[in-house]
Amino acid sequence: MSEIAEFYRQWTAGRPSEVVTLEEPIPLEALHTPALVIDLDVFEANLDRMQNHINDAGIQLRPHTKMHKCPVIARKQIARGAEGVCAAKLGEAEVMCAAGVDDVLITSPLASLDKLERFIALRSEYPKVKLVVDHLDTAHYLNRLAAVDGCIIDVYIDIDPAMGRTGIKAGRPVLDLATQVLDASNLRLSGLQMYAGHCMHIEGYSARAQRYREVMASGQETKDLLDDAGIDVPIFSGGGTGTFDIEPDQGLINELQAGSYAFMDIEYRDIGGQHSDNFDDFGVSLFLLVTAISQPNSRLITVDAGFKSLASDKMLPEFREIEGVVYHWGGDEHGIVNLRNPSKMIELGDKLEVLTPHCDPTVNLHDFYFPYRDGMVSEIWPITARGLSQ
Amino acid sequence: MSEIAEFYRQWTAGRPSEVVTLEEPIPLEALHTPALVIDLDVFEANLDRMQNHINDAGIQLRPHTKMHKCPVIARKQIARGAEGVCAAKLGEAEVMCAAGVDDVLITSPLASLDKLERFIALRSEYPKVKLVVDHLDTAHYLNRLAAVDGCIIDVYIDIDPAMGRTGIKAGRPVLDLATQVLDASNLRLSGLQMYAGHCMHIEGYSARAQRYREVMASGQETKDLLDDAGIDVPIFSGGGTGTFDIEPDQGLINELQAGSYAFMDIEYRDIGGQHSDNFDDFGVSLFLLVTAISQPNSRLITVDAGFKSLASDKMLPEFREIEGVVYHWGGDEHGIVNLRNPSKMIELGDKLEVLTPHCDPTVNLHDFYFPYRDGMVSEIWPITARGLSQ
Repeated sequence: MSEIAEFYRQWTAGRPSEVVTLEEPIPLEALHTPALVIDLDVFEANLDRMQNHINDAGIQLRPHTKMHKCPVIARKQIARGAEGVCAAKLGEAEVMCAAGVDDVLITSPLASLDKLERFIALRSEYPKVKLVVDHLDTAHYLNRLAAVDGCIIDVYIDIDPAMGRTGIKAGRPVLDLATQVLDASNLRLSGLQMYAGHCMHIEGYSARAQRYREVMASGQETKDLLDDAGIDVPIFSGGGTGTFDIEPDQGLINELQAGSYAFMDIEYRDIGGQHSDNFDDFGVSLFLLVTAISQPNSRLITVDAGFKSLASDKMLPEFREIEGVVYHWGGDEHGIVNLRNPSKMIELGDKLEVLTPHCDPTVNLHDFYFPYRDGMVSEIWPITARGLSQ
Repeated sequence: MSEIAEFYRQWTAGRPSEVVTLEEPIPLEALHTPALVIDLDVFEANLDRMQNHINDAGIQLRPHTKMHKCPVIARKQIARGAEGVCAAKLGEAEVMCAAGVDDVLITSPLASLDKLERFIALRSEYPKVKLVVDHLDTAHYLNRLAAVDGCIIDVYIDIDPAMGRTGIKAGRPVLDLATQVLDASNLRLSGLQMYAGHCMHIEGYSARAQRYREVMASGQETKDLLDDAGIDVPIFSGGGTGTFDIEPDQGLINELQAGSYAFMDIEYRDIGGQHSDNFDDFGVSLFLLVTAISQPNSRLITVDAGFKSLASDKMLPEFREIEGVVYHWGGDEHGIVNLRNPSKMIELGDKLEVLTPHCDPTVNLHDFYFPYRDGMVSEIWPITARGLSQ
């Protein structure tokens, strides 16, 4: 192994992935802020709700760990019935495997030889690791590397849902790539993947369901094309939190890749559900605990969390259980809170829970979760794959 | 020490802070992406340029480590003549001290008792650590804790430049707080701080200089008020990369807190300099190396870096040395590049350098820098204080 490959291996291998149990439980307010906290009652209900839904629908759940990046949580999902997990990047997959979560699908294509070689090294230790391909050349190189290693690689073909991000074009190009994979001595065609990320946050259940059905039609046609050619691919993987209750009727996806349902965020809360204007199938369980540290004047108070603690790609953070206040970005380290008509006064030194705008990139900023129940923290969960986008 | 305080101590103390030297230098393209890389020639010229400017102006440099979060870089700044460093948060200060950079000013107020206690614990080990206060109550509690510990704490008074983020109101309130600090048995009034963050990115040198002078006038008045009361405060700290060449004429700030000058970013490049429409006093030395991983169609190519690898609070990333292409956010893990009229073709597997929109929150996403010269990487620098916003 090259020196730099060994460096990458050490980087991911040395990370803590086990629960830290405190000898004495501590109140939430004893945490030093900003701290990413999980409301365990809501969180566990979310995991149960999704697994029950999956069981009722007779499909499989392969939750996406790019969201929580935490083997402790992945193990809880698997204990409830998930067949395995997804990872967006190789580094995440390495962390999950090392922590005993070893049935991992890498959902984003690898296109450089160094990454393919690193994948093969991982695969030779963990035979259930698999990956998507979306290009004939990648399949070709992967097959050659697998032949040298003497292993058979499970691959999914990634199909572009006309979103223009990753994936091969639906229809005939998929058939060509499938044929090449079937002909390759050291590849096995295990699944198709089509993740319509651009549909997940469409507001309103019926608008979302309609658009999603239109988009996924090309997936159905592609599957039919393969069936007609006598190619039976057992798994059709995709979907997310925004389409979890659309999939069963659709009848195409039999492996759901949802991630955000475990934590939720402002973005998902606002999309609307099948039975309500708010998407309340899952509750918000992830919060950032912040402290009020300065008060420029009587109408403003500053908290200790900005761009370095909360994802800033989407909407603004909101406070839990306080109405009449508005958070504004105060730069890298701060949020400035406008006290319009606060339902509860905020004093200097107060610690407060904030809803995160977008859970995935928020989680990626933190090293630990502090789960709590009845206001008490008794465990710390390491966010082992934080920052591993390599 | 409480169990949770001990947990926080271990969290920051165990981090690597030394240079990793590769036995064999490797080409930039051997890095697994996304990778944060530093063009050493530009970087070193930036450090030299700033220190020379500071020496000519006869003031002090206290560079802000909230930007680079890296003791290796802090040591280089001190070796060139910086008197000490700034940190935004306690966790950053703990990392710097543990790594031998022990003259640290914490520039953001602490307002909760747990943080003040943690500060005292740090201060009793590293006597040159100091902090800002912006409230009478904080000064009061800090003095009591210092008396119990038996130490004298150096404090700066943080003055709000009418920005409404942190700091006490200029004028009389500063005099009152200064009087309280002078009367406190275990506090020493070492400086005033006034950081006008809202002026740093005003486009055009003369507009920026004019607005900055207006804003800082209340700082001068406050200093005069203290002088008249016989209170001589030796240090007036503040300013940044955007005002580095405005300060000397202004004659108020004698300790510059600049940070971004070492790396630069798109936001600072675009503000304009004293002698040019581009702010070219410092060159961009920080880049994100990315890989092209998928090509949805001939007009688009997807790279492996999105919200989890690049700060998304400001403008879009740009490519180095490629014209006629536009990066768009492709979500957490991806960027989608529009190939309008590319000056250089981008092929699958290519590794490319991207300018970061905003350096501070970009750095905070990564664990390591990979500095290079003549296209070769021979060292790795840990970003030791990454994520330490606590």
